[in-house]
Order: sequence, then C-alpha cells, then structure tokens
Amino acid sequence: MQPARRPGGRSAKVRAAVHDAVLELLREEDWDTLSIARVAERSGVHQATIYRRWGTLPALVDDTVTEQLSKGSPVPDTGSLRGDLEAYATQVAADVAGPLGRLYVRAAHIGTRGDDHETYMTDRAVQLEAMLQRARLRGEDPPGLLELMELVLAPIYYHAIFFNRPIGPEHARTYVDRLLRLRG
Amino acid sequence: MQPARRPGGRSAKVRAAVHDAVLELLREEDWDTLSIARVAERSGVHQATIYRRWGTLPALVDDTVTEQLSKGSPVPDTGSLRGDLEAYATQVAADVAGPLGRLYVRAAHIGTRGDDHETYMTDRAVQLEAMLQRARLRGEDPPGLLELMELVLAPIYYHAIFFNRPIGPEHARTYVDRLLRLRG
Repeated sequence: MQPARRPGGRSAKVRAAVHDAVLELLREEDWDTLSIARVAERSGVHQATIYRRWGTLPALVDDTVTEQLSKGSPVPDTGSLRGDLEAYATQVAADVAGPLGRLYVRAAHIGTRGDDHETYMTDRAVQLEAMLQRARLRGEDPPGLLELMELVLAPIYYHAIFFNRPIGPEHARTYVDRLLRLRG
Repeated sequence: MQPARRPGGRSAKVRAAVHDAVLELLREEDWDTLSIARVAERSGVHQATIYRRWGTLPALVDDTVTEQLSKGSPVPDTGSLRGDLEAYATQVAADVAGPLGRLYVRAAHIGTRGDDHETYMTDRAVQLEAMLQRARLRGEDPPGLLELMELVLAPIYYHAIFFNRPIGPEHARTYVDRLLRLRG
C-alpha cells in the first residue's frame, strides 16, 4: 500500500507528522512496544487515518525508514560500477555508525514482526536495482542485489549489531573489492 | 570475569537458575528493559551474587548465550576444513531459524549496550579459532575468524534480521563455497 504523495499539501503534513512520531518513538527505551496507537497519540493524527494510509505498523515503519534513507543517503550515481559501490558502501557504513544506525536495526526488528516480510525496504531495493541496471547499460557486469546485500550490507550491519563497533570507510571499501573479485 | 564452574555444586545451580531467568526474560515482550535487578527477582538469586559473579549485564547475557551455543551447537570437528565450515554454517543457519535465533539477536542488542564491546561471545570466538587452527595443523589454509564472520555469519544473520526469512542449509553452504573461493 503506497501512501499518496502531495508535497506541501495536508497529506504531506500528515505523513511528516507521523514519520516524526515513529522516529521519536524508535529512539525511546521502550521502542519495542511501538504500536500504531502510540504513533497516533504522539503525532496527533487519528489512528484510523494511519491505518487507512499505511495498513500495518511494519509498512509504516518501512515507509519512514525508506524516506529517511532516500533523503539523507540517496543511492549514488557516479558513472562507474566501482564508484557507485564504493560510495554506497561507505555511505551505509557512515549511516550505520551515526545516530540513525540503531534506529534502522530497531526498525528491522519491528518490520519483521509480522508475516509480511517481502516488503521491507522495497523502495530502497528498487533504487539499488536501478543503480545496478545503470552499470549493466554501460556494459559493466554488476552483481545481483542479493550478492550486494550479502557481501556488503550484511557485514556492515553485523559489525554494528554484534560488536557495536561500526566499520570505517576503508574497511567498507574492502567489501566492494571482495564483491568485484568474486565476479572477476 | 569468569564464573567458577563446579558442575552439580551450589555454584552450578546458581548459574543455571540465573541463565534460565535470562533466557526467560529475553523471550518476553519487554526484553529490552532486561536488568540485573529483574534477573535477580526472576531467579531468586541475590543481586549482589549476580554482580559479584558476572560484573555487568552484558557479561551475564554473553555467558548465558555462549553456554547455550556450546551445549546445543558445539563447534564441529569433522576432520576437514570444508566439512567443519559446512557443518558450522548449516548449524548456525538452523540455530538462527529456530526459537533461539531471535534471542541471540536480542542478546546482541543488550551485549552492545555498554562500552565493553570486545568481550561479546569471546568464548565462542576461542572455540572457532581452535577449529581454524586444527585446519592449519592439518596443512590446510583456513580463513581468518574475521573472514568467517563477515562471509558466513553476517549474511545468515542479515537474512534473519532484515527479512525474517532464515536461510536453509543449501544457501548456507554457498557461503562456504564463496569463502573458500576467495582464498583459492
């Protein structure tokens, strides 16, 4: 379910208020008990409006996180596959190390609470697919999205989640080397 | 800080009671507010005893999880590097897919709450290092622990955390292929 987007209109204001409430609640200690009722209370937007627009809590959290990522960390378009992958990997590492990092992991926890697992960060996946497709059109041989996730995203999150020690840009670039080496 | 181990003695009983309480509390909805005070209350073991024995909540959670892993999923010793890695990868995938999977992720969240990040699953790391060392002694060329974590553990957890769709044994074995290919 895709919320309508009318920038500047009432709809956009409701969306922003609801997103802000989700981000605020994700920052709090009892984030794991986040619910649409609590988002409604915090945002001042009617619960019925939220349900109508987003359908479920995981869909709402997903929309919030994807919007943050798209605004703060647009998928790169540098003109080369390696350039795009390195820009992307170092950007994700920086995001995960920053204040939003923990929120993304919390959002993922909530996103996977229900049964509707296929939709998590769909918009983001579409943006990344477009990045890989641009490489293909330039005659390069890009990896698939799954390989990109498993070889680049997964270890970045792993370090952050299990060691609370986010990796730096140099380390992130070694994941791109590895990914390209496996395709060479 | 290593708790004393006297199987069958009072010390072992205290340890088991405290571990059980931690596992129970990790299963509950408000797991993120786990504290030594709540473990004391649940286990009936004095808070002072828990502090004396484990020092901090992350150390206690770490000890609990490592003990579960060592009991339920001992590090394999099949006689060959590939055999060990495949057994290990499919076992981790099964663990993560099982009821303990979510607990491990929750435990990691709690384990990285403080500043003492180096100690998470130290005992487990020592067991894995021993597995790689056995390969070295047989004249094989094993990966380092970091490569093993980044290429095998990280994507297994990534699928579980971000897609709530744990991978099966076949998929897990492709990670071992990848790891060995990168060293070949």
